[in-house]
Amino acid sequence: MLPPVLPTPEAPEPAGPGEGGPLADPAYREAVVDLLGVLAYGELIAFERLAEDSATAPTLPDKVALASMAAAELGHFIQLRDRLTEVGAEPYAAMEPFRATFDQFHANTAPRTWLESLVKAYVGDGLAGDFYREIAAYLDEATRTLILDVLDQSGHSDFAVERVRAAIAADPRVGGRLALWGRRLVGEALSQAQLVAADRDALAALLAGGVDRPGMDLAAIGRMFVRLTENHARRMAALGLSS
Amino acid sequence: MLPPVLPTPEAPEPAGPGEGGPLADPAYREAVVDLLGVLAYGELIAFERLAEDSATAPTLPDKVALASMAAAELGHFIQLRDRLTEVGAEPYAAMEPFRATFDQFHANTAPRTWLESLVKAYVGDGLAGDFYREIAAYLDEATRTLILDVLDQSGHSDFAVERVRAAIAADPRVGGRLALWGRRLVGEALSQAQLVAADRDALAALLAGGVDRPGMDLAAIGRMFVRLTENHARRMAALGLSS
Repeated sequence: MLPPVLPTPEAPEPAGPGEGGPLADPAYREAVVDLLGVLAYGELIAFERLAEDSATAPTLPDKVALASMAAAELGHFIQLRDRLTEVGAEPYAAMEPFRATFDQFHANTAPRTWLESLVKAYVGDGLAGDFYREIAAYLDEATRTLILDVLDQSGHSDFAVERVRAAIAADPRVGGRLALWGRRLVGEALSQAQLVAADRDALAALLAGGVDRPGMDLAAIGRMFVRLTENHARRMAALGLSS
Repeated sequence: MLPPVLPTPEAPEPAGPGEGGPLADPAYREAVVDLLGVLAYGELIAFERLAEDSATAPTLPDKVALASMAAAELGHFIQLRDRLTEVGAEPYAAMEPFRATFDQFHANTAPRTWLESLVKAYVGDGLAGDFYREIAAYLDEATRTLILDVLDQSGHSDFAVERVRAAIAADPRVGGRLALWGRRLVGEALSQAQLVAADRDALAALLAGGVDRPGMDLAAIGRMFVRLTENHARRMAALGLSS
């Protein structure tokens, strides 16, 4: 994956002065549990989908490449689940509110071909990673470090670039179809993200800030979307696709 | 998994006197490449099947348990694949002769329920591990150490015991059906193993020994089957199933 344009943190760390650090604030803690829950469930389902897609790989090395991405996602999942336990949450209960969203996203974007699987792995992984990096800027240090560490461990997806470019070189019509597919993936992802934001007050409040904690105003949210869109366009271009 | 009854090595290590060690002997090297190839492909497909089965898990913790077994198998695969490269073989070419066998085995033993998945994971993993441990006794030290290391890293399957026993306690009829399933798994595994032995001369010769290298006589092969059967019966008993 290309190194993303890093977000400029627009808010300082919401460091709690009291005992127990920022997590002692119930509203903040609820938001962090939500965030870890959504991340964890996303990684678990990413494992499942990548493993499923690896079964359709045209060659054994391709199968292994996608299977390795799947195993890496499961490793991330384990770290996030264990962090949920550390902050005193029941990890699987924390993931529960996000199951329907992810399951719907994956049902709406089930790849019909191996190349669609690759584009989804590369573009989806990248977009989710960028979004979580943006949000990490608003978190306490321990949680932020974990999330950034988990995201840094990605990078198995480079082979997708090579495979997709080779397929387009062999048959340029493939590029048009996959570009449409990439746009559909982003549309579905944004639509599901909106549903989550509408449903989870604590998460939305984390972004919006609080009385003693600066958050994102509308302009900052706008700038975040610009960064997300730019990074997405760079990934599509890396694949040889118009975004 | 229960600690298996360890095989008594009935042959000394076939240490080659010449440069390059035992692998300098072309017949031995061919057998080792075959063995690593069959092991590696078996692990890759085990990943695929366990990952597929994890998608049908009734709870998230169950899903994670089976997904973790899948990821562990992929880790084993990577080690075996890299060892194939180390001994100068093209890893995927070495696996190719065994694809049809494993694919047929899994097609013939596709679990219809979550409990069948668990029994297959536990019993299949155990039987395969015992068999590879038996064969490892006939290998050079480096290859043997790798295989035993890989096998020792298993052990994610204990949760299967707990789940299967709980299901039988809740409905004893489940035990009868799963016992039949366990017998079918062993029958299919033996049938596929025979096809491999009939097809791969080098592997069969490794077991049978050579001019300067003792192998297994019929009595030794008989004793090996007794050990495999005993260990299988112990695993079935651990699950609460008659074998």
